Amino acid sequence: MGSSTPFWQALESAETGTQRPLEEALDALAFNEAGLIPAIAQQHDTGEVLMMAWMNREALETSIQERRACYWSRSRNRLWRKGESSGQVQQLYSIHTDCDGDTLLLKVDQQGAACHTGRRDCFYVALTETHAEVDQSPLVDPNTLYGNP
Amino acid sequence: MGSSTPFWQALESAETGTQRPLEEALDALAFNEAGLIPAIAQQHDTGEVLMMAWMNREALETSIQERRACYWSRSRNRLWRKGESSGQVQQLYSIHTDCDGDTLLLKVDQQGAACHTGRRDCFYVALTETHAEVDQSPLVDPNTLYGNP
Repeated sequence: MGSSTPFWQALESAETGTQRPLEEALDALAFNEAGLIPAIAQQHDTGEVLMMAWMNREALETSIQERRACYWSRSRNRLWRKGESSGQVQQLYSIHTDCDGDTLLLKVDQQGAACHTGRRDCFYVALTETHAEVDQSPLVDPNTLYGNP
Repeated sequence: MGSSTPFWQALESAETGTQRPLEEALDALAFNEAGLIPAIAQQHDTGEVLMMAWMNREALETSIQERRACYWSRSRNRLWRKGESSGQVQQLYSIHTDCDGDTLLLKVDQQGAACHTGRRDCFYVALTETHAEVDQSPLVDPNTLYGNP
C-alpha cells in the first residue's frame, strides 16, 4: 500500500453498495509517474492468477468499454489489446481497484495461454530457499501463437 | 510485461524441473528504480487475490527465510512483516516470479483480514461502465485490528 487520498479514504468505511461516478474514481486512481497502474489478471472461475501487466487511463477505459483486457505495452510503448496477435483474448468479467486506488484486479476468461511462452500463466518460476525452478510446461508452442515458422 | 533479460529468456524454453541457484534469480529480478518489485498475495486454497504490495530484496529474502510474507512499506519506509501490528499474518506457501522477473506471486494462508479496512481482501471497489461501487463489507472493525480505542 502507498499513501491514500481522501477519495479512497472516504470509501474505506462506506457501506456495501455505496457508489461514486466512474469519472471521479478514474481521476482518483494512483497512476505512477509514467501514467501507469499495475493490473492483475485472474481467471474468473478457477481463480488462477494469470499475469500482471500495466494500464494507462486509456487502456483502462478501453477495457471497460470493450469488455476485454487492454493493457499498455511498456516494451512496444502502445496500447495492447491482449490477444490481438496471439488470439489469446481475455474477455472481461469485472474490474476492481484496491483500497488505496493503486492496483487493479481483473477477472477474465482467458482463451488458451496467458503467457507469451505458451504457458497458461506467467508465474512458472518458483523461488525456494536454495533454487529457482521452472514448474510449469507450455500448453502450446509459442511459435504457433505468433505466426512464426 | 517489460523487457526481459537473458536469465529469464533462457528459462522460457527450459524444461519443467530446470533449476538455477536462488542468488542468480534474485540478481536477475527486475526491481524498479526504487529497488522494489510488486508482490501479489493469493490465498493458497481458495484462490482469492488478497492484496498487492511491494518488496525490496531484503523483504523477499526475509519472506523466504521466515516463511511469512514480509513487504517494504512505502508509506513507512521500512520492512513490514505483514501482521506485525494487526496480527493478520500471512504464512507463506510458495513464491513464484513471472516470465520476465518483474512481478512476484505469493501463495499464503491469510489469518483473518488482509486489508487494513478489516475486509478479507483489498479489492472491494468495483469499476463498472458508469460507477465505482463498494461491494465487500469488513469482516472485523479495523479499530480492533490496530488496538485503537
